Amino acid sequence: MESGERIERALAQAVNRTGGEHAPPKLAAAIRHSVFPGGARVRPRLSLAVAEACGGDQPGLADAAAAAIELLHCASLVHDDLPCFDDAEIRRGRPSVHAVFGAPLALLAGDALIVLAFEIVADAAHEAPLRLAPLIGTIARGVGAPAGIAAGQAWESEPNPPPEQYRCAKTGALFVAATMAGALASGGDPMAWHALGYRLGEAYQVADDLLDAVSSATETDKPVGRDAVLGRPNAVAELGLSGAVRRLESLIAMAMDSIPACPGEQNLRELVRLQALRLAPKRLLESAAA
Amino acid sequence: MESGERIERALAQAVNRTGGEHAPPKLAAAIRHSVFPGGARVRPRLSLAVAEACGGDQPGLADAAAAAIELLHCASLVHDDLPCFDDAEIRRGRPSVHAVFGAPLALLAGDALIVLAFEIVADAAHEAPLRLAPLIGTIARGVGAPAGIAAGQAWESEPNPPPEQYRCAKTGALFVAATMAGALASGGDPMAWHALGYRLGEAYQVADDLLDAVSSATETDKPVGRDAVLGRPNAVAELGLSGAVRRLESLIAMAMDSIPACPGEQNLRELVRLQALRLAPKRLLESAAA
Repeated sequence: MESGERIERALAQAVNRTGGEHAPPKLAAAIRHSVFPGGARVRPRLSLAVAEACGGDQPGLADAAAAAIELLHCASLVHDDLPCFDDAEIRRGRPSVHAVFGAPLALLAGDALIVLAFEIVADAAHEAPLRLAPLIGTIARGVGAPAGIAAGQAWESEPNPPPEQYRCAKTGALFVAATMAGALASGGDPMAWHALGYRLGEAYQVADDLLDAVSSATETDKPVGRDAVLGRPNAVAELGLSGAVRRLESLIAMAMDSIPACPGEQNLRELVRLQALRLAPKRLLESAAA
Repeated sequence: MESGERIERALAQAVNRTGGEHAPPKLAAAIRHSVFPGGARVRPRLSLAVAEACGGDQPGLADAAAAAIELLHCASLVHDDLPCFDDAEIRRGRPSVHAVFGAPLALLAGDALIVLAFEIVADAAHEAPLRLAPLIGTIARGVGAPAGIAAGQAWESEPNPPPEQYRCAKTGALFVAATMAGALASGGDPMAWHALGYRLGEAYQVADDLLDAVSSATETDKPVGRDAVLGRPNAVAELGLSGAVRRLESLIAMAMDSIPACPGEQNLRELVRLQALRLAPKRLLESAAA
């Protein structure tokens, strides 16, 4: 089965657990709306590619870890969009969860997704129980405090967030969790995959800053120029447009170079190359060169 | 070490992980404010008492499981108090987390506490790794969807929540998780402890309904009469005041009867008796008898 299908199937199985005749129906619908239809599923694809590169001897556990990473990403988007936070009415080109279901159910859907992520990994670990503790710990560090997504978003409430720590926690940490969890699910060495996640996470954040600075709202499906309005660290503000593009290219190159020799190396390079094309659209590179 | 001290120590160790020089300081402070000073720590005391009753051969894991239950309880209070939910400015007699730190940091503190709960259990399982998966699953079912705390709170957004399922999910599920996690941490049979958690959870909710219906705001440190205002299921509305008191007494008796024969049986009975006294203050019983 192709990795995109594996991810959608694992996500569907996870989301189905939260529904059924005894579940509060609006919460179940809000959870489904948070996860489907998805975006590019960048993080779970990366996680699964690393799991395959490490041998993929526990595909069920690798699928669950990848799905957990995506559920946590979805949870962070739902909470980030809430009126008390970014107050975004649109996500992925359609109404955000609170816009459809109201803030209380969006809050609870995010909470339930965080819980569900850990639950499905635990459930999938029966054939490799010794891999569970490091998997849970790795995934938790990607999303909690002091250095995961929650910390990254919390830096936005500080007067002078350190740019490196802010960017790392807000975006990088979940990419690092994705690559390391993929390795752990297959019994690989997670530290061998730290740099790949770290560089891609940084690249993703720089690309997001570029989009925020130069795109129109129609192209990104979300409000633009928000960083300047909200006074958040932004690579374009720090490095200028062409400096940020050069930084992005160098990060992608470092990510490529960090991939260790392994059976699935070719697939993984191809995935990173495709991601790089997605991250740095031709028009952006051209406008930076102009 | 006395069980109250063990719980406070485990909670302090957990909360300390979210701070440090690289953590966003306001988030770290908001997390601390969410957990300290605590309330009666009813659920972790219950969890630890069951762990001891089952032999207590892994005290570190039992402490972590008990602390995880309390962190999740604290997270649910922080999110429940948010302006988009119950909009409560006061909790445990002092300003609620969002009243001090603002809604965004309260939201993130709750998220980080949920993550932290699973992280500390995984971290404490190194000497008994086979106990981890059922522990994570049991704790997750107590707080997520379709039947944990998130589901319980979500029933409040439905037009006619089924009273039994609502009460069970909102309060009972975490008590069930507390007793079962205590058993699992010590290698005991979790199902032997299901009824104790279930009955105590029900008793706790009925007691809360009684307090909501008859107390003054000064006594409970939180707004009263909210259930009637918000149209939520309430045992006093269903059974009348004396009916609800009789129900509470019968639930405590059923909880007592459910305790299996075990080494720590006496301690556990004493704990349940003390909880029962706390739950059903004399004045309430008198006013029901009048």
